[in-house]
Parts: sequence; structure tokens; C-alpha cells
Amino acid sequence: MNDRVYLDWNATAPLRPEARAAMGAALELAGNPSSIHAEGQAARRVIEEVRDQIAALVGADPKLVTFGSGGTEANNLALTPALQVGADKAPRDRLLISAIEHASVRAGGEFAPDAIEEVPVTAAGVVDGETLVERLTALARDGRRVLVSVMLANNETGVVQPIPEVAARVHEAGGLLHVDAVQAAGRIPCDINTLGADLLTLSAHKLGGPKGAGALIRREEAVHLPRPLVRGGGQERGLRAGTENVAAIAGFGAAAEAARRNLEAEGRRMTALRERLETGLQAATPKAIIIGAESPRVPNTTLVAVPGMKAETAVIALDLAGFAVSSGAACSSGKVQASHVLAAMGASKDLARGGVRISLGWSTAETDIDRFINAWINVAGSLLKGIRGMAA
Amino acid sequence: MNDRVYLDWNATAPLRPEARAAMGAALELAGNPSSIHAEGQAARRVIEEVRDQIAALVGADPKLVTFGSGGTEANNLALTPALQVGADKAPRDRLLISAIEHASVRAGGEFAPDAIEEVPVTAAGVVDGETLVERLTALARDGRRVLVSVMLANNETGVVQPIPEVAARVHEAGGLLHVDAVQAAGRIPCDINTLGADLLTLSAHKLGGPKGAGALIRREEAVHLPRPLVRGGGQERGLRAGTENVAAIAGFGAAAEAARRNLEAEGRRMTALRERLETGLQAATPKAIIIGAESPRVPNTTLVAVPGMKAETAVIALDLAGFAVSSGAACSSGKVQASHVLAAMGASKDLARGGVRISLGWSTAETDIDRFINAWINVAGSLLKGIRGMAA
Repeated sequence: MNDRVYLDWNATAPLRPEARAAMGAALELAGNPSSIHAEGQAARRVIEEVRDQIAALVGADPKLVTFGSGGTEANNLALTPALQVGADKAPRDRLLISAIEHASVRAGGEFAPDAIEEVPVTAAGVVDGETLVERLTALARDGRRVLVSVMLANNETGVVQPIPEVAARVHEAGGLLHVDAVQAAGRIPCDINTLGADLLTLSAHKLGGPKGAGALIRREEAVHLPRPLVRGGGQERGLRAGTENVAAIAGFGAAAEAARRNLEAEGRRMTALRERLETGLQAATPKAIIIGAESPRVPNTTLVAVPGMKAETAVIALDLAGFAVSSGAACSSGKVQASHVLAAMGASKDLARGGVRISLGWSTAETDIDRFINAWINVAGSLLKGIRGMAA
Repeated sequence: MNDRVYLDWNATAPLRPEARAAMGAALELAGNPSSIHAEGQAARRVIEEVRDQIAALVGADPKLVTFGSGGTEANNLALTPALQVGADKAPRDRLLISAIEHASVRAGGEFAPDAIEEVPVTAAGVVDGETLVERLTALARDGRRVLVSVMLANNETGVVQPIPEVAARVHEAGGLLHVDAVQAAGRIPCDINTLGADLLTLSAHKLGGPKGAGALIRREEAVHLPRPLVRGGGQERGLRAGTENVAAIAGFGAAAEAARRNLEAEGRRMTALRERLETGLQAATPKAIIIGAESPRVPNTTLVAVPGMKAETAVIALDLAGFAVSSGAACSSGKVQASHVLAAMGASKDLARGGVRISLGWSTAETDIDRFINAWINVAGSLLKGIRGMAA
């Protein structure tokens, strides 16, 4: 697959060389981190070093970083009525989520379906602050104890949500805020204190680490999870049982460290590459709509729709031409469905099936973008042929 | 650590070379298995090939193999009142476990603490069949819907439980049987049909695969898990959300395949090594008790107790001498506690703190055993010094 161009980094990122090296070394360690002998302690040290690296990426206290198998698991762990704050042990009884959350947040964790409410987003793909405040106020008036979950960057559009403002409103109303930062970490700053998130989810494989590791990070020790999702042994200070995935955690740390070190430079480079991409797409298909372009976005993501061009057909044609891109979210069973994100943004049914997502990463080069635009011209040309006035 | 001898394979096994190679190749695959492009499908193929390998290890239907992050997660997934059999959707309301289960089974999954009952074991470390039948009969009479969980091989003693007989009794009483085969798979035959288990748990890292992968395997499609533990995307036929850990799964498959191919030969070799070990231990410390020796055991495990010798002290002394062994189970937060397994077998409090576990694996050599016995002679000699009549 050497000639291929991979532009689906929001589905999963190729492994960073730093992560591969760290995993190779960790796989040589025989020990179980819970064992007290030298082999066990060597494995334990890897985990604790990575805990520092992950904490550094988000400005958190290392001891409030809980490792698990990935972003989905971390989201499931966070979304529970059993969340406690200090001595306040009464359960949360309402979960408020934005209408554009990932499936693992939409599933609602331990909340019953009728305890979950969606907050709409604007046509620009940003959570509707006015409705959020209305709902928070009404729920507080009713004595509800609310947990809110809003993602930092959307996986399909790349649109960045105004989390510090959301956090202020949630806290004013006495609520707690969980932020799924899976698509933002390593692309834009994610300081947990600046964001004001009480709980933050990260995934290793979206930032150049391996699949199989993620973390739930708490801003303050007072926020407690009394009944973990995966129970048994006392690993992760009792918050996640099961032998730790030492190698994946090692790769997670190395990737987070590389992402943090290069955050600004990679961000600038990515922004320039995306401008080149979007300029090329607009020139090739003038009716193309770059979805969410009017909002702040993470620098690596473009979601483009061309009226009359089916995303799933375009993705398949581009795949055959040697380019990996996606339509909608990848985190499902391979089924192609209309995007709930585009639908929430008020896109027509036609457009909601029409988004092609092109997402870039650290190894994406200018030549990849130029080759992609050439392929796009061909694919769009043939798919739009015969649709009056649509072709370039 | 090249001079060290690792004899703690029940805590975790060093990675088999076949697993390391498979992981290296899988880590080169960029795609998300849920993506429809070539990169995604290449990752998907790895998972489906491993599904066949895991199914082959236990004689199961590949489509009834559900991957997750490890044995603990698989046990948590299995132990839920929501388990259904065919059209019978009423919840299970009682969980019966043996008194020697792993912490991840003892936690009871989704069952409320007061719905969980323990069945005692004999002094030989085998589940007490008479009490089991009594309880099954009484619960059936009360209209209870029972799930039973009994491990195939105990992690501390290595004692193999009579699962086919347990399964027959459970099924006669209308119950369902889950079997944690984590410590047995790759060491003795684990055919799911011969065992009669309705649900079977495997862990990759106990059989020479990496940490971070495990599987829950169902014997029949009729046994259904309507509410998965980790929810979100539709991965694993809807039974386990989250991007699959492709590399760990690849290593799991390669390790399972190697274990299956060498099962008989490794078993014979291990049995001979253990005989050499236990003969040496008895000669060095004649009062040593090999716990569970009167019962069938997996061929790699020795749990030895010497009256008057503290296991935790011995383990530390042996560690300093270059040997990794353990006292009790490793799957916890590093705390040394009296063993619930030995306590359940009726061992005195002194003895329950006294077990040193020596567990072998594919790379253990005769010279490792001989070196260990020499170290044991020294350590036991100095720990027992002054205890009248205890030393060799």
C-alpha cells in the first residue's frame, strides 16, 4: 500500500515512530505491573512515566489520570449517575449531551435512556448556548442534578466547541462537565483547567499512539467514581480493574509527548495544508460546501459536500484511486448511514449523506494534498457528469 | 535483567516470538477496522483471522468470539443479569460462584452484592459438588434463575475444576454456566463443547500474547448479551464498542495458534519440569506442602508453603536473588493479603499467608529450575534459621 495516500486520521492515525519504539521496548518487559518483583516494577514504572506524560498534555495532576482501553471506554466510565463530588453522594439524575456527540457518548453510559437530553447545535455546528442555559436553568429549578457532556472537537466537521463558556454555564447551574477531547488532543491546546472540564477523555490512537489505550482524566480529586465500569483487581487506584496494557500505554505516552512538543508547529503546518486542500476543492468543484468552515475548527479536518454527489460513492471511487478518506464517522460496524452531525446542523437529507471527510496528520505532505486534488477532480467529474451545472 | 529467571507466568507470560511478529506487522496497518477503504479492510481482516484462531483453540464458532481488552473485561461482560437464552428474556437473579474465583468474577459484574452466593471448595481446592447441587436444587425450587461461574484452572494452585460435571449439574437445574478459562487456555485442552460452558473467558497475556486483549466466547448463538458493558459504536456485532485493538488481537491470535500447536508437547515438558521442581523443593524443605497436589492441576503451576516461612518475605528474597515468583494473586494493587483461595481450602491463617507460587512457561528450561532450587535452598535456609526442626 506504499503508493496510497492516507487522509483518514480522524478515524485513526498511523502510529508515530516514537510510539512504535516505546511499544517495542515495553513488549520486552515480561512483568505484570501488579507484581512486586523487579519485572513487575519495571512494567509499573512505564505506566507511571506515561501518566506524567498524559497529565502534561492536558495540564492535569498525574494521579487523576485513569488508563483504560480507549476513548469509548473512558466515555462509558465517565457517564454514570454514581459520580460524586466530595461528600455529596447523591446520584446525578440527568445527562445533557450535545446533538453531535460520538456514539460512545450518545449511548449515555449508565444513564437510563429517559434521563438523557440532547442540546441542539447551530447551523455552524456549535452547541447552542442559549438552549443549553435554558435547559440548565430549568433543570436546576426542578432540583435535577445534571451531568453535561460536550465534545471539544467534532470528529466529522472538526468544529471546536466553546468549552470554557460551556463549563462556566454548567458550573453556575451546579452541574458537572465531561468533555470528550479525543479529536482535539494533540491538535489544539487541551488544558483541563483552561477548559474547565471536570472530566476529560483522551484516546491514544487518534494522536498517533496505538489502538487499545485511552484515559479519563479528572480535574480535581474531589470528583470521584465510586463504581468503576470494569471491576475486579485494584488497578488504577481502584478505578479500572484488569492487567494494564503496558505496551499500548507506553505508545500512548510517547505519542502524547511528540504531539505536545510539536503542537504549534504541526498546527501551523496542518492549517496551511488544509487551506491548500480547501482552495483546491473549491476550484475543482465550485459548488462544494466546506461544512463548519465559518466556525473554529481543529486544523486537520475538512468535511466537504457537493450537492448531487453521494459521499459513499465518492469514498469508494477515491479508495480505488488510492486515497483513504471517509464519509461520516468510522466508529461503527461499517454501515453507511446519514450523519447525525450534519442532520443536527440542519443539513438537508441529501447533504447529510453527502459529506466526505478528509483528515490530515503529522506525516501528510503537500504532495499528498496535490495528488488528492487531482483524484478529486477525476472522481467528482465522473460522478457529477450529467448533473446539469454541477461539474467544474 | 538477562540473568534473571522468570517463574511468574500465571501473573503474565512473556510475549511469544510469534505474537511479537504478528504485532509488529499489525502496527504497520494504519486503518480503522470500521473504515470501508483498503486500509480499514486490511485491519478488519487481521481481526477476522484471529477470530478463527481463537475459535479453533476452544472449538467454538468464530462468530461467537467477542474481543475486548482482557480477561477481567470479559468476566465483567459475562456476569450480568441481562443474559438471555433465545426468546427467554427474563433476567438472571442469582449468581453462584466458587469461593476461589478471580477478583474480576468475585466482583460479580452487574449483579447486586446480595444476589451473589459463594460455593465452597474442598481442602483439595476443588469446588464442592455436593453443596453446588444442593444450592442449585434449592434455588430452582425457589424459582431463581441462576448463572454459575466456576473457573477452569485456579490461578494460585493450578487446580483444575471438574467443569463438565459442573456444567451437567447446572444445566439440569436450568442454569447457565460461565467458565473463566484464563489460566487454563494454552495449557490444557479447553474445548467449549466438551466443557459444556455457555460462556468462556480467555486472556491473551496469560498464554503468551500481549496484555490488552481477551475474549468472551459463547457456545451457542442463543445465549445473548443484550446490554454490552462498553457501549457506543457497533463493533463486535454490537457486543463491544470501541475501536478494536488490532495489534493486541493479532498477538493474541498468534500466541493462541502457537499454544494450540504445541499443547501436548509443552504440557509433557512442563509436567516433567514441575516434577523436577517439586522433587527439589521437597528435598530442600521436607516440611514443604505442595498445595493442591492431590488434585488434577495445570502442568505449569506449583504453590508451595513451608510452615514458619512467610511467603512475602520469601518472594522478596528470591527477587533479590534474581528469581521472579509470587505470593498469592498478582492481579491487584500490589498489596500483599492473605489468599482467599487458601482460606477457602481451609488452610490455617499462617499457611494462607504462606504460599509461594512458582509458575512455568514455554521458555522455562531445566537449568532455570535447577538454579531456582539452589536459590530456594539458600533463602529457605536463612528464613527458617532458628525455627526449630524446620530447616532442611
